[in-house]
Amino acid sequence: MFQIDRNSKTLLVDQIRNAIIARIESFQWVQGGRLPSVRALARQLGVSIFTVSSAYEDLVAQHIIESRPGAGYFILACSSVGPLKDTDTLAPPSGEHSGFLFRALDPAQFDIPVSSGYLPPAWLADAVPASVTGRLIRNTLSCGTPAPAAGSQDLRAVIARKLREVHIDASSSQIVVTMGATHGFALLRNMLLSPGDYLLVEDPSYLLLQLKLIKDRDFKIITVPRLDDGPDLAAMEAMLIKYRPKLFLTQTLVHNPVGGSTSPAKGFKLLSLSRQYDFHIIEDDTFGALASRQTLRLASLDGLDRTFYISSFSKVLSPALRLGYVAAPPAFVERLVEQKMYNLLCGSAIDETIVTYTLESGRYQRHLDALGQRVMQERSRAREWLGAAGVVFDEHGADGLFLWGRLPEQVNIPNLVEQAHQAGILLAPGSLFSNTGEYDQYIRFNVGYCNHPGFKRFLRTHIGLAHLRVVEGQSDVIDPVERPAVTV
Amino acid sequence: MFQIDRNSKTLLVDQIRNAIIARIESFQWVQGGRLPSVRALARQLGVSIFTVSSAYEDLVAQHIIESRPGAGYFILACSSVGPLKDTDTLAPPSGEHSGFLFRALDPAQFDIPVSSGYLPPAWLADAVPASVTGRLIRNTLSCGTPAPAAGSQDLRAVIARKLREVHIDASSSQIVVTMGATHGFALLRNMLLSPGDYLLVEDPSYLLLQLKLIKDRDFKIITVPRLDDGPDLAAMEAMLIKYRPKLFLTQTLVHNPVGGSTSPAKGFKLLSLSRQYDFHIIEDDTFGALASRQTLRLASLDGLDRTFYISSFSKVLSPALRLGYVAAPPAFVERLVEQKMYNLLCGSAIDETIVTYTLESGRYQRHLDALGQRVMQERSRAREWLGAAGVVFDEHGADGLFLWGRLPEQVNIPNLVEQAHQAGILLAPGSLFSNTGEYDQYIRFNVGYCNHPGFKRFLRTHIGLAHLRVVEGQSDVIDPVERPAVTV
Repeated sequence: MFQIDRNSKTLLVDQIRNAIIARIESFQWVQGGRLPSVRALARQLGVSIFTVSSAYEDLVAQHIIESRPGAGYFILACSSVGPLKDTDTLAPPSGEHSGFLFRALDPAQFDIPVSSGYLPPAWLADAVPASVTGRLIRNTLSCGTPAPAAGSQDLRAVIARKLREVHIDASSSQIVVTMGATHGFALLRNMLLSPGDYLLVEDPSYLLLQLKLIKDRDFKIITVPRLDDGPDLAAMEAMLIKYRPKLFLTQTLVHNPVGGSTSPAKGFKLLSLSRQYDFHIIEDDTFGALASRQTLRLASLDGLDRTFYISSFSKVLSPALRLGYVAAPPAFVERLVEQKMYNLLCGSAIDETIVTYTLESGRYQRHLDALGQRVMQERSRAREWLGAAGVVFDEHGADGLFLWGRLPEQVNIPNLVEQAHQAGILLAPGSLFSNTGEYDQYIRFNVGYCNHPGFKRFLRTHIGLAHLRVVEGQSDVIDPVERPAVTV
Repeated sequence: MFQIDRNSKTLLVDQIRNAIIARIESFQWVQGGRLPSVRALARQLGVSIFTVSSAYEDLVAQHIIESRPGAGYFILACSSVGPLKDTDTLAPPSGEHSGFLFRALDPAQFDIPVSSGYLPPAWLADAVPASVTGRLIRNTLSCGTPAPAAGSQDLRAVIARKLREVHIDASSSQIVVTMGATHGFALLRNMLLSPGDYLLVEDPSYLLLQLKLIKDRDFKIITVPRLDDGPDLAAMEAMLIKYRPKLFLTQTLVHNPVGGSTSPAKGFKLLSLSRQYDFHIIEDDTFGALASRQTLRLASLDGLDRTFYISSFSKVLSPALRLGYVAAPPAFVERLVEQKMYNLLCGSAIDETIVTYTLESGRYQRHLDALGQRVMQERSRAREWLGAAGVVFDEHGADGLFLWGRLPEQVNIPNLVEQAHQAGILLAPGSLFSNTGEYDQYIRFNVGYCNHPGFKRFLRTHIGLAHLRVVEGQSDVIDPVERPAVTV
């Protein structure tokens, strides 16, 4: 018979099921053959009868075996195994921005996701405390209640408490739970913008990447340069006068991708402008917890008067969760809840329960502290070797998960991105984050992935070869991966 | 010391934490007092050191106790217990439709949710198989990958297989996983409608309830009467000629709230009209699995050519999950995925994992069969007593979770709904589902809740009192709950 491995991460039920399928596929067990009885197999493998019978039930459901009452389980025609393997995979969208996000979300696509927006799984292994058990999940599943429209009261209360720790004074009735930060943006855009309105975004910005996914009918996008210490306020005032935007999207702490944080003085001026020119601000703080230098958030200065504060737990707890929230000025909460119900009725009570238990556990703050430490360490290592390899970092005071680096002029970025892709490395070129063309030579590096030896080898080789090609005057002709012998 | 209950559904960690909080709140343990050591309490309660230390960690995080290194754990000022209880609850939106949905989603609001859209929790207790364990969830949480943009390949493959069982021939690359059926609608509306376009909906219809949440800028809603055997096709053709709608929303099986199913002949004509007048169809099959008489879906007749098929697992597995899908014509899949990424990037890998394991288990079909049986039994019991109490059912061939009944004319429906509300009973009046005024005397009854003795007493009393009031000619004056003595 086959072996089972009690130390494997694969469930026993699945191990048994997979072993049977393997035998059928390799024709060791053939059509019409009788399987061992549940009892006999359980005894032989030293597992419970329940485990074996669950595995058999699964195979029946998949039309691989059948149960003949009184006679036992029998193997159906081998062709039945077919449907289990569905190789009809979905191609990424052809758009530059949607293609990137689609690939970035699919873990099977890349071995080294150097430009991913997520933290490495190993850094999050202990993020969820042991109090999140199967029993808790099963209780939540079988209690039979949906998540309330705005999110559970417990979750909103614990979020409000956590916000007070970063000096944002929000009552739980100002918190609306969303399916992540992106979802918060989508709901606020729909709520705050009317057709023809202008939306102001920083350039470069991750938010610009998201907005470029689709040509939205409801608003026009205008941009203001993002500097190291926040948006360029002079340029911003000119845009405010000219276009009177209704909404400004920004990231105060550790801007994605630039890395700098808005200074409190600039934040104060920004809030004054919002009053003078009558626009609202959406502040995205998804990565703020990872900043080694914590400064004031706009929502804290503003008292959630004109500012909507957005954050997410998908980054710092687990990408498998889809949970974030908006802290909104009181007058907008009701409309925001209506917008959410119109969009998806309510959230996942499972995800809400997991996050509630995690935030209430003593481990959460320690986890964030450890993450911040780790980001800082990896950041300085990454910056060192990337700098030595020829990548230039022209920001000052940058911090957080992303390094925003300019590659030497002789490196052809679209080629580099494509060759990285072929080598299983995900790279996000600056063009994804900017409308200006000014950042075409940039790459956003995730410090959690860019110290990978495979990526070091890849980048050093390609920057080195690009130098050589310039010397030979053939920079656009030679493919350094396929024909390195010619260039050396 | 305090007792713990190993048979309780409350986790041991929470029992310990709650017991300590109770002692602090009742001043048995006072500020500055030292707690038993972790080891001592663990020994005394017969639990692991880890369990006690987790409870203590939670209390530290909640600022109820503090850890003094080398000295132990001490109780902080009693005022610190305060923030745990957040009584700043969020009021329901004032809109009739959003107010209803908000209340219906909050389990704390009603003892007997007679008009709920969800199945009773007890009916779903065994829906998720034992193979969904804490280990599975923890693996998913710590594997560190988001759900792919369109949903996991495994889940999309198993959904495609299940669809083939109901004669819908969809490849897995046509399946886009959504956060429930409502989310599927929202994405398709955004994708298929341009500003000024007409959207055709049946009247009455649950879909109309959802659409009335918000005045959408992007489209105008027009309606066609829903008859027992599908939409009124003559009225429909007149609307098609006059308005040329781009999209038609319908429920083929067990229409919500009417209960009837569209006949295959009518379905065929509907599809012919969609070709003749060039519109798309969204078919919502959320409740179709509960129909005792299974007929052909439009998506099956149409071969997913002009029809988008939507369904959800939140109803038949657990309302705690937020997971549904769209099966789309191939040419629309890429745009739909882009729309989803623009709206919320991706779904919850946790919810996707739970549903994948459940669908793959042998239990799923048996669970659906048992649910269908139960719905049929409760439906006939409910119809009998409601009929005897004076509620009229004028549909033929209705089936599924909802009874759509007309109350006697002398019952003032807004009063009844309000008095039910006061008595902890959720009732959905016909006006929520219709624009015409024709259904104002109707109530949507969920057969899973309307056999509750408390509701029987309530309804019989109120219909009886309404009769009496008519006799006395005071129908709008007397409140039958507060002053029954006057009327009798």
